[in-house]
Amino acid sequence: MFKVIRIEESLFEENDKIAKEVKDTLRKRKILSFNIMGSPGSGKTLFIERTVENLKDKFNFGIIEGDIEGTLDTERFKRFNIPTIQINTGGGCHLDANMIKKAISEINLNHIDVLFIENVGNLVCPAEFDIGTEKNVIIFSITEGNDKVIKYPLIFSVSDICVINKIDLLPYIEFDFENFEKNLRKVSSKIKIIKLSSKTGQNFEKWIEYLKELKKKEF
Amino acid sequence: MFKVIRIEESLFEENDKIAKEVKDTLRKRKILSFNIMGSPGSGKTLFIERTVENLKDKFNFGIIEGDIEGTLDTERFKRFNIPTIQINTGGGCHLDANMIKKAISEINLNHIDVLFIENVGNLVCPAEFDIGTEKNVIIFSITEGNDKVIKYPLIFSVSDICVINKIDLLPYIEFDFENFEKNLRKVSSKIKIIKLSSKTGQNFEKWIEYLKELKKKEF
Repeated sequence: MFKVIRIEESLFEENDKIAKEVKDTLRKRKILSFNIMGSPGSGKTLFIERTVENLKDKFNFGIIEGDIEGTLDTERFKRFNIPTIQINTGGGCHLDANMIKKAISEINLNHIDVLFIENVGNLVCPAEFDIGTEKNVIIFSITEGNDKVIKYPLIFSVSDICVINKIDLLPYIEFDFENFEKNLRKVSSKIKIIKLSSKTGQNFEKWIEYLKELKKKEF
Repeated sequence: MFKVIRIEESLFEENDKIAKEVKDTLRKRKILSFNIMGSPGSGKTLFIERTVENLKDKFNFGIIEGDIEGTLDTERFKRFNIPTIQINTGGGCHLDANMIKKAISEINLNHIDVLFIENVGNLVCPAEFDIGTEKNVIIFSITEGNDKVIKYPLIFSVSDICVINKIDLLPYIEFDFENFEKNLRKVSSKIKIIKLSSKTGQNFEKWIEYLKELKKKEF
């Protein structure tokens, strides 16, 4: 009853090689880069929007927006007047390093301090492709249910930061933080966990402080 | 800035051939089969559970449970004491027709009236693979946001039924049904839309009545 579908190893090797190039390019310019992953509707776009709103006077941001099709999210970013590149995967379920390599060749990187890359909404495929960012972030909404780390362990295990989003809905949803964190620690002992609501702003300052620390520490 | 990742056409052709075999096998036995798709946490498992609870005295059910790994959902079905097969894709982001062909060879189909196949939680990949079911169902939670039909049109366009789930959360979430349905009708004019809450049971009887009708009409 088991079947494993594997993309050829060579494809991953080629991807990892390009991911390393991307990482080198970004590091050389002291750009702090985030790969924002999560289910459809987990709140990835709003998380980036609120971060930019909070810090736009302190840092110069760039955004690479990954979607199957359309430019809905890119339009949401227009009001910030910051460099934004739309990648449409045309059916592809994730971004890969080559797409990011091309995207960053179209932005003037000299004017960017922090780069957000919003991946395709998906808990499976994006986990398998390193795209060369400094930090992988999984945005998880409490509406998705307690069992998701057990069902989709890879994406949590490759993430440096887990944002537990939509905590404003806690009064109306059963969610067991203790159990969720216990399972999360099993797949990633070092993952940074931040609980917040991008919608109401509750606890959002914790993320903002953490981002500022990262920027100070690493660059 | 565009890149299209395509799985080879031959792979789809082969899949469609096997899907047809699966469909013929199920039809011959008058089994009404559903491919239950949706994002992680949209409520697919609870939807199936509540349906079985409602109709277990009327129909004999079978369940095929697709997950990346683990048997969490299959264990939730144990209490019903009905034939349940777990497929673990080992990283694969969707079920395919061949997995279902193998799974149904392990169930005694003579005793099944209604077969639920729960696909991997994902709005992208499952849409591309026909698995031979009579009806494709997309379970969509209002917590996922209004823009999802525009961002993931394929999965909605291949679905026969759209269950808009978690309507019990309506007082706490901004969700514009009219706008959502307008976009949905654009990608699929004939799709059957049912709004309900699998958790509270609100409107669930509408789905139950519809299932009974389908069973009468088609088989």
